[in-house]
Amino acid sequence: MNAAPEPGRSPGGAPGERWQRALGLVGHGVAGIDTPALVIDLDAMDRNIARMVAFAQEHGLRLRPHAKTHKSAELANLQMAAGAVGVCVQKTDEALALARAGVRDVYISNQVIAPAKLQRLAHGVRDLPTRFAIAVDSAIGVDRLATALADAGVRQPGAVDVFVEIDVGHGRCGVAPGEAALALARLVASHSALRLAGLQAYHGSAQHQRSPAKRSASLKQATEAVRDTLTLLRAHGLDAPLVTGAGTGTFVLEAASGLWGELQAGSYLFMDADYAANQTLPGAPAFEHALFIRAQVMSRGTRHAVCDAGHKSHAIDSGLPTVAWPPGLVYANGGDEHGILTTATAADALPALGDTVWLVPGHCDPTVNLHDFYIGVRGGVQDGRVERVIAVDARGALG
Amino acid sequence: MNAAPEPGRSPGGAPGERWQRALGLVGHGVAGIDTPALVIDLDAMDRNIARMVAFAQEHGLRLRPHAKTHKSAELANLQMAAGAVGVCVQKTDEALALARAGVRDVYISNQVIAPAKLQRLAHGVRDLPTRFAIAVDSAIGVDRLATALADAGVRQPGAVDVFVEIDVGHGRCGVAPGEAALALARLVASHSALRLAGLQAYHGSAQHQRSPAKRSASLKQATEAVRDTLTLLRAHGLDAPLVTGAGTGTFVLEAASGLWGELQAGSYLFMDADYAANQTLPGAPAFEHALFIRAQVMSRGTRHAVCDAGHKSHAIDSGLPTVAWPPGLVYANGGDEHGILTTATAADALPALGDTVWLVPGHCDPTVNLHDFYIGVRGGVQDGRVERVIAVDARGALG
Repeated sequence: MNAAPEPGRSPGGAPGERWQRALGLVGHGVAGIDTPALVIDLDAMDRNIARMVAFAQEHGLRLRPHAKTHKSAELANLQMAAGAVGVCVQKTDEALALARAGVRDVYISNQVIAPAKLQRLAHGVRDLPTRFAIAVDSAIGVDRLATALADAGVRQPGAVDVFVEIDVGHGRCGVAPGEAALALARLVASHSALRLAGLQAYHGSAQHQRSPAKRSASLKQATEAVRDTLTLLRAHGLDAPLVTGAGTGTFVLEAASGLWGELQAGSYLFMDADYAANQTLPGAPAFEHALFIRAQVMSRGTRHAVCDAGHKSHAIDSGLPTVAWPPGLVYANGGDEHGILTTATAADALPALGDTVWLVPGHCDPTVNLHDFYIGVRGGVQDGRVERVIAVDARGALG
Repeated sequence: MNAAPEPGRSPGGAPGERWQRALGLVGHGVAGIDTPALVIDLDAMDRNIARMVAFAQEHGLRLRPHAKTHKSAELANLQMAAGAVGVCVQKTDEALALARAGVRDVYISNQVIAPAKLQRLAHGVRDLPTRFAIAVDSAIGVDRLATALADAGVRQPGAVDVFVEIDVGHGRCGVAPGEAALALARLVASHSALRLAGLQAYHGSAQHQRSPAKRSASLKQATEAVRDTLTLLRAHGLDAPLVTGAGTGTFVLEAASGLWGELQAGSYLFMDADYAANQTLPGAPAFEHALFIRAQVMSRGTRHAVCDAGHKSHAIDSGLPTVAWPPGLVYANGGDEHGILTTATAADALPALGDTVWLVPGHCDPTVNLHDFYIGVRGGVQDGRVERVIAVDARGALG
């Protein structure tokens, strides 16, 4: 029942017909973009990249953007060319998809304990010219990683960088700061194929706290956990050279702490409606929305319009999209394939049947995961030209 | 920057390595399934298919299941082999993806007004051995469809079946019942390439009203709208042969109305946590959960476990997943790649690091859209064997 593969597919997996159709847009105006489509304002994205690199350089910090945001080897390499040391991902298969597509430094900032996944990673370490790193929060995870590397014949000392993840307040992954981290760090250091690279310390839930005061309070707690753990490690003769973490909502605070040496912010690349709702911390660069959904009104009522972008074109875990253009419109949930548009005030006008609508996704990362490619536009998304089509190489790389 | 396509991809677009790895599971036990994975209990699914066919046959109704649920040509053809007359989809590219993969009767139960999409559809009508149908709710949509068919050289009378969509209470797409529907039906009948096939009447929001009394009230209103419109059409000499619509939450009511001739329910195939929360209508077949996410505990706290399935493996528009197994666990939002598991009562036990967890998605349709393929299991998902891998052919077919 399994048909032969269609030729000409995208690197990310789009069937050839859709991918070829997208490639045919290059050099033409945005009017030809089929809807719904994931569109990057390349000018805005380039400015975001430059602002983040400048921030990291001013603070003497390494920048390792989280590629879970964009899942694209081309964008990862763009970030690295601009000054990033590498990228983070959350999944083994994301790491391998990016490495196979040419990204040379990839850190899985997450736990992996399935032997089959660790075997795939070990084969990647052995066979690909990419430097890999991984986070751990269990002895089982450390021992299985070491076993997988040995089974794959990886004998090089320090072949994989390992970060001990400590829970700095998010309450998800990570061992407790202090003694538990020390014990795990010792275990890492006992395996010659593993290099104890430092601590993974990321406060995920703090990223979306709206008030700078709340984020500062969360990061104060996280900073103390990191400092105490580093002190303990050093007292026991263990050097944990780098603390890595931070997101788009808090990286100014990690940078100011003097403890973190590497920033993992990812969403700054595109921004989204959720991050835009945060009040900006003093000293944070001003990032622009660079990621949009181009949609079309395909049904029109007397008091509402319906556009062709629903849950299948954008994620709603952090709220519904906002309408970037036309002005004065409110997007309501219309299900998997539809959005319901109404006017914000009596002075605003409903769009007509066939009109274009530009949406800003609520949350960029899982929105990107719904698409096989981006359409990259220069000169503004509303009336610019398509410069290139960018594959979402690691879309659906769940394992 | 666009790499050459990798050989051996899935029909749905999964990179060859992931697709080949999945194919390697066939004939083996479920223990080898990488997580997170979309797994079908084929026995339960077959029983759901048989129950729905039996219901439709007992009521003398056509069954045209909504393939927006499964997006798979193989499953569409399975439904048709069991007695369905065809399938519905919501998008032009979904229709073309299924038609190219061998589905011979596809109805786009949604509006399409973009000329480029209508051109693709017209080429499909001309070049593929599939019978196509489409819904309309605007004169622009009807005229552009006719133009696209003419431009593609489609001259056959009644080449495409057209259903006039009326808004029966959902408040999304569709013209008002009565005069507006009559005017649009006349326009359809005026184009020789279009066959006025009937009315599209679907009350989407009624599907998820928990109480049978509320659903009955919603469908009473919908039934009156359909009856009045049919009466008006007939009074003006227009024959609208078929009323098509209904979903898994209400189809018993449409069947009892004597007006609907075709049922479009789709979710019955898999069911999901949201539909399971509905109180069943009298006379409705008992459908079983047939779609699961297999996940693994990859981090373990003292009072919580973390599994490797988050927003990237299941949609949350209709709520978070429930935990099918082990018993006594509650799933909380852990972000894009994680789920936080806690115990429901003090008597329940947290799973250990590495343990398998089976989730029931909150909403099957957009969950399926996140995956490139299903793993089909016989003998129960917990300890059965993998029978086949089924491509999600129309995943990401947004246009």
